[in-house]
Amino acid sequence: MDMLTLDKVYHAKHVLKQIIRETEVIKAPKINPEAEVYLKTENLQITGSFKVRGAYYKISQLSDEEKSHGVIACSAGNHAQGVALAATKNGIKSIICLPDGAPISKVEATKGYGAEVCLVEGVYDDAYNKALELRDAHGYTFIHPFDDENVIAGQGTIGLELIEQLPDLEAVVVPVGGGGLISGVAFALKTLNPNIKVYGVQASGAPSMVESLAEDKIKCLASVSTIADGIKVKEPGEHTFEYCKQYVDEIVTVTDDEVSSAILALIEQHKLISEGAGAVSVAAVMFNKVPVKGKKVVCLVSGGNIDVTILSRVIKRGLLKSGRSDTMAIQLEDKPGQLLGVSKIIAQLGGNVVSIHHERASEDSDITDCILRIVMETRDFDHIKKIRTALADAGFKIVKK
Amino acid sequence: MDMLTLDKVYHAKHVLKQIIRETEVIKAPKINPEAEVYLKTENLQITGSFKVRGAYYKISQLSDEEKSHGVIACSAGNHAQGVALAATKNGIKSIICLPDGAPISKVEATKGYGAEVCLVEGVYDDAYNKALELRDAHGYTFIHPFDDENVIAGQGTIGLELIEQLPDLEAVVVPVGGGGLISGVAFALKTLNPNIKVYGVQASGAPSMVESLAEDKIKCLASVSTIADGIKVKEPGEHTFEYCKQYVDEIVTVTDDEVSSAILALIEQHKLISEGAGAVSVAAVMFNKVPVKGKKVVCLVSGGNIDVTILSRVIKRGLLKSGRSDTMAIQLEDKPGQLLGVSKIIAQLGGNVVSIHHERASEDSDITDCILRIVMETRDFDHIKKIRTALADAGFKIVKK
Repeated sequence: MDMLTLDKVYHAKHVLKQIIRETEVIKAPKINPEAEVYLKTENLQITGSFKVRGAYYKISQLSDEEKSHGVIACSAGNHAQGVALAATKNGIKSIICLPDGAPISKVEATKGYGAEVCLVEGVYDDAYNKALELRDAHGYTFIHPFDDENVIAGQGTIGLELIEQLPDLEAVVVPVGGGGLISGVAFALKTLNPNIKVYGVQASGAPSMVESLAEDKIKCLASVSTIADGIKVKEPGEHTFEYCKQYVDEIVTVTDDEVSSAILALIEQHKLISEGAGAVSVAAVMFNKVPVKGKKVVCLVSGGNIDVTILSRVIKRGLLKSGRSDTMAIQLEDKPGQLLGVSKIIAQLGGNVVSIHHERASEDSDITDCILRIVMETRDFDHIKKIRTALADAGFKIVKK
Repeated sequence: MDMLTLDKVYHAKHVLKQIIRETEVIKAPKINPEAEVYLKTENLQITGSFKVRGAYYKISQLSDEEKSHGVIACSAGNHAQGVALAATKNGIKSIICLPDGAPISKVEATKGYGAEVCLVEGVYDDAYNKALELRDAHGYTFIHPFDDENVIAGQGTIGLELIEQLPDLEAVVVPVGGGGLISGVAFALKTLNPNIKVYGVQASGAPSMVESLAEDKIKCLASVSTIADGIKVKEPGEHTFEYCKQYVDEIVTVTDDEVSSAILALIEQHKLISEGAGAVSVAAVMFNKVPVKGKKVVCLVSGGNIDVTILSRVIKRGLLKSGRSDTMAIQLEDKPGQLLGVSKIIAQLGGNVVSIHHERASEDSDITDCILRIVMETRDFDHIKKIRTALADAGFKIVKK
């Protein structure tokens, strides 16, 4: 492969200076009290993700001839927005191929940055093939999302910023999908200071780089599934695989539940929205997946473009898991006043009923009984227990959970 | 009243230098395309709100005698956390009185910053009276949340930061509850540059300063109601009323729906969590409540301590209002295969069913009919219309909405 040089990463930094934000590093003492944790807030980067760094630098280095034809990319996510903005700022045309099921919000955002959007029937692979077809027909330059030296150099500028912002940092934890981000960051940091540890994090449902490294050859996963769609990648790149082998200390995995907890922690403790892929680094440190005890460690929060529908589900799950919401089914005798009795107890104990459903006759109850399904907001698990105990003491039969 | 001086605000800035974060100003081009909008991110301040500025400066200026007795405050919100942290960092004792219905999360956060928490049965006024009682009994210094010259000087440091961060800013939009924040900011800015416009924003359900200014005397509202609990204040302070009269150009109001939209816009466009009170400034600019067309304007996002339960509701409301969620009731004949028919149409058109409820016999339907209640995730209003039309074309009767 071509050899990346520190020169090139510094050049990328120079080129990006007027375009991107040098995102802040924010102290995060509660993420893991046993380490000195910081967040690199690339979720606050323009376009909501680090991807604009690599895309912009790559496009800026094209020849005039290449620029005159325009660029094409395939992505339903952050890369699309990065390429669109980078092309527009370089004054050239961009076409983004997306599968037609892509969320309207992503399509609109991509258009908003000035790209022409080409919706392709089918899934990602169909959009990818269409992009290559259009490239061949029209002479566009295809901008790879990760396996490209200039793209990697652009992402590497984060490493340079980190070492300036925290000269004595000891470890960095980086999300890994195709591996472009960690390749650039690890190359820059290790070249400047080989003592800095660089850890990667993948979703347990998409561990393509982990398995490739374990088998020492690039592996293509048959299927991938995770809430962290930004790193839901089946196969590492050839370049990125080599960089990870050479410069990365270890790559670990986190579960979707751990990612959800990390997203919630960033909301509650730091008022920051992170997407799933952006929060895997925080999840790894929260749940002690990487050996950073006692160390000054930066979690790279790579992006914040989470669909609010998914955000809403993550919060709901978090509320249930922390005892701030409860769902009960109560078996009632079919006679007047029962609903009143239940309502009174819940109200007296400060539970806040969000929804209630009252139905007669179900398979697993007597023909004269009713089931009352209640969703309520609660303070914590103790509070739930108090309410449930009071209901049971008053003779109500809780049939579920 | 005591006269605040610019000296004092600069002194506060000096004292706060090692304690607080100089929060970033972030460009926000989509909030209102007709103005050059920036966000002052005090939601990213330590403790999640600007309140720590005033509380810390106030406490730092107490005499050794006063410090030895400790401080007391009454608050269920940001002031509590600000006083707790400020006292701990000054090495003195703090007691915070809270009404016993306060959310557990706030109680825990306040304890976490080192305060002793005193839960008082009743509402805010009861906790307030208890605080004064304890002050008299033990010699604590009471730290007022806003009507105090040193507290106001502390909040004024935001004005000094703004003029350094954006030397050519033309207008600032500031949330107003009791008026401490806007008094400090307006005093600092107007003293340095009288041409800078300072606008205040209150919730339409708690317009105490607006009404007081209109009647030119301090008015105590009988009741207040708003999602923006951080500015749900019945009565302005004596000092703050005078500062607003003298230094503030205009105070406007925004509705809870406007605040919800602003919270959602901050999440989607800027990956930032704001509490209701923090988002009123953004709402005012989004909905053209203040005359800032063509101006370089800063929206002060004062805090981010929103309960995730409320956040979840705000998002749900936002999804409904933007067509990304739909609830329908369909009247079905009570015969097999009906549910299948409906499910097929929704699935084919890409609707994502979140919950479904099927019930027999309701007052407003024939005895043999069923009602099917469906909540689904959708892409936008067009998508909803497409699905509803397809269902109607297939002979299904949508009975609600």
